[in-house]
Amino acid sequence: MRDQALSYAIACQQKQLEELEELLSIPSISTQPQHKGDIAHAAGWLADHFLAIGMTRAQVMPTSGHPIVFAEWLGAGKDKPTVLIYGHYDVQPAEPYELWRTQPFRPEVRGHNLHARGASDDKGQFFMHVKAVESYLRTSGKLPVNVKFIIEGEEEIGGPNLDPFIEQNAGLLASSVALISDTGMPGPDLPALTYALRGLCYMELEVTSPKRDLHSGSFGGAVYNPIQALSEIIVRLKDERGHILIPGFYDRVRPLDDEERRVLAEAPFDEAAFRAEAGIPSTWGERGYTVLEQITARPTLDCNGIWGGYTGEGSKTVLPSKASAKISMRLVPDQDHEEIDKLFRDYVTKIAPPQVKIDVRGMHGGRPALVERNSPVIRAAATALERAFGRKPVFVREGGSIPVVTTFKSVLGVPTVLMGFGLSDDNLHSPNEKFYLPNFYRGIQASIHFLDELAQV
Amino acid sequence: MRDQALSYAIACQQKQLEELEELLSIPSISTQPQHKGDIAHAAGWLADHFLAIGMTRAQVMPTSGHPIVFAEWLGAGKDKPTVLIYGHYDVQPAEPYELWRTQPFRPEVRGHNLHARGASDDKGQFFMHVKAVESYLRTSGKLPVNVKFIIEGEEEIGGPNLDPFIEQNAGLLASSVALISDTGMPGPDLPALTYALRGLCYMELEVTSPKRDLHSGSFGGAVYNPIQALSEIIVRLKDERGHILIPGFYDRVRPLDDEERRVLAEAPFDEAAFRAEAGIPSTWGERGYTVLEQITARPTLDCNGIWGGYTGEGSKTVLPSKASAKISMRLVPDQDHEEIDKLFRDYVTKIAPPQVKIDVRGMHGGRPALVERNSPVIRAAATALERAFGRKPVFVREGGSIPVVTTFKSVLGVPTVLMGFGLSDDNLHSPNEKFYLPNFYRGIQASIHFLDELAQV
Repeated sequence: MRDQALSYAIACQQKQLEELEELLSIPSISTQPQHKGDIAHAAGWLADHFLAIGMTRAQVMPTSGHPIVFAEWLGAGKDKPTVLIYGHYDVQPAEPYELWRTQPFRPEVRGHNLHARGASDDKGQFFMHVKAVESYLRTSGKLPVNVKFIIEGEEEIGGPNLDPFIEQNAGLLASSVALISDTGMPGPDLPALTYALRGLCYMELEVTSPKRDLHSGSFGGAVYNPIQALSEIIVRLKDERGHILIPGFYDRVRPLDDEERRVLAEAPFDEAAFRAEAGIPSTWGERGYTVLEQITARPTLDCNGIWGGYTGEGSKTVLPSKASAKISMRLVPDQDHEEIDKLFRDYVTKIAPPQVKIDVRGMHGGRPALVERNSPVIRAAATALERAFGRKPVFVREGGSIPVVTTFKSVLGVPTVLMGFGLSDDNLHSPNEKFYLPNFYRGIQASIHFLDELAQV
Repeated sequence: MRDQALSYAIACQQKQLEELEELLSIPSISTQPQHKGDIAHAAGWLADHFLAIGMTRAQVMPTSGHPIVFAEWLGAGKDKPTVLIYGHYDVQPAEPYELWRTQPFRPEVRGHNLHARGASDDKGQFFMHVKAVESYLRTSGKLPVNVKFIIEGEEEIGGPNLDPFIEQNAGLLASSVALISDTGMPGPDLPALTYALRGLCYMELEVTSPKRDLHSGSFGGAVYNPIQALSEIIVRLKDERGHILIPGFYDRVRPLDDEERRVLAEAPFDEAAFRAEAGIPSTWGERGYTVLEQITARPTLDCNGIWGGYTGEGSKTVLPSKASAKISMRLVPDQDHEEIDKLFRDYVTKIAPPQVKIDVRGMHGGRPALVERNSPVIRAAATALERAFGRKPVFVREGGSIPVVTTFKSVLGVPTVLMGFGLSDDNLHSPNEKFYLPNFYRGIQASIHFLDELAQV
């Protein structure tokens, strides 16, 4: 049954690619209201596709935001485990468009890579599991385990609707283990299992000084400039090495012990390649930690955007009324994003110059996560990866956020396997996002193996 | 002759307003390339208008940027002085449009005010002199003095073409005195003569850290954030009271002596009104100077704009490649904008964190100016203002920049009379710019008196 599925998967690679390209052509950008229709289109396309490959149930389920696509096949029976496969069909905005070599929503294969917004994050990744399921159903008419899919449309906006949906539909989603492919691997041929993710606390800060834009010639010198005030606040958020200065920020951070630092150090990390990829002359970060620890195992703070005053061509001598910034913090266990939101507000309000008005808004938050490295399901995943790639996976932490992992644990009581196939040069959230196609095909095989292994747990 | 002109001016007020509205309807925004056609339209409209009111010569003279409109009437003969009247037909951009109560290029009278972009800066102001000249020519067929107009189209971009034009056309522009109305008065009924203007040095600063936008989850913590670096640079430009920290910045600043501080203090300055107008709870500025001195007689530095990273709706977790700011300095005698440009570059390059790349561009500069308070032409102007307004003018410094004043002195050897009619709540460079119409009409009368007074100097 497994071997037939594997043969089918290998024979159908061209068709798998074409179907993925069709999905990638839909600009399902969740953060931009003008793409609401594309979001609906992508959700509908997926539900149709699930039925077409033989899932017994598939439906687009509304939320108060973007809909969630649910599908299931439960023919393996109650004695067999149920795997809940999560993915997201929404993608990041594609701006700045002018930096894309080809159009973000016209997928193009160049060499071994498929280029498109969402190719790696996350359409290309969750679609492998869809194709693994199809490979079983088309060859044997059944799967070794029960399978449910939950594919959401608000991951890139940390949508507030997923957690309530999971809570309200806990029965529908009941399962033995969750599986997510939305992470990466250290190199194209080295599989990995991610056991920790950073959480997120994303804030927006608006500073208002004069009530309207003023002429800098007539007012400059006696009016506190909001860009100045915003810069002062930003500078006081971190010390000169990136250690965050918000009081209480580190109180709940679980320290890295020596054993964990040793496991982390097993995964290859090429600092020169990291620098080359980022295009920076030198790294920079918190004292006492390796670069890999800084970007995966330590909390950080970054300004994601800033704007204020005249930003057009030429020179306008304005003393602006407002300046704003988007500032986000990556969190690690056991930090709590709601507590960090409050600490941020309190600190920023306290350090703001008295001449200006501050408005702080929490944009979204997600909990950090840690999963058990030695459970049977993780061992099943390790075996599946080893079979598909021909070598044992390494264990890694990842710097990004998948808050649903914590929700699966707390609401459904299931552990999550994070079996990721992205590469560090996939240009996630950047122009020219791509997915390394050999791993798309090996990922389908790994998924086929995983479902088979899981039946024996 | 003068009295006939005055009667004509008063009788024609409705027509004067309608013609000004026609000129204000042309969106001659010099800084935005898409308005090039409107610039040409405004220049042509003016040249036609000069001929229509009886000037003997009027023409649109090309430059390598926006054209200059020149007009003359020399019938008073060589024994009489020649006055060179300067103005600018270009206007500031109108963004943000959504804050305008009515459309910026559809002039509307509300109460005593005419609302439109350029109403006060500077179309409404130079147009008064056009109407004063018309009043003489239409009633007596001649003027008491010779008159030349030079109306440029690049004032708001500190266009590099005006100075070369004046140098190349020094013969054409030869005159006894220059007259500019592009400044303000302390209150609606209190006329003023401005004797000092601040200069300007406008810079743009771009900070680049990673070569492309990165995912803040994958890179945050080990890559210097360009918004962070830009904020750090901005914070180090001034101390906590706005004193500028660029080494050498104050070296050429001429100190204020007690006599000048006394003259300045004669002009009423209502600090509460200033705060109310700016909409700020408290002023803020350099220690040891009054607010009026801070905004007119001391050099200052302001960020006019800042941008970088994701500035759209929602939350994008990007660690951006670049962040930029527009930063301008207001200069006072005897600072030199080219020297300040260099000091700024040197300092910013020195204080930038070594992990980032800095690109500093000089956008434009203008020299500060001081004019003699006791010359015969200034006395003629004071008499003219007193006749039109019924009270003696006060002497003031202004915080803005009119670099041409220095050029008129150095190239043509003429002093400039700065007879301004703007009010501090005119919303220059802001939404809802307006001009106080009673001063438009009194300004026409003051100009008629000034031409008459000048004939007797």
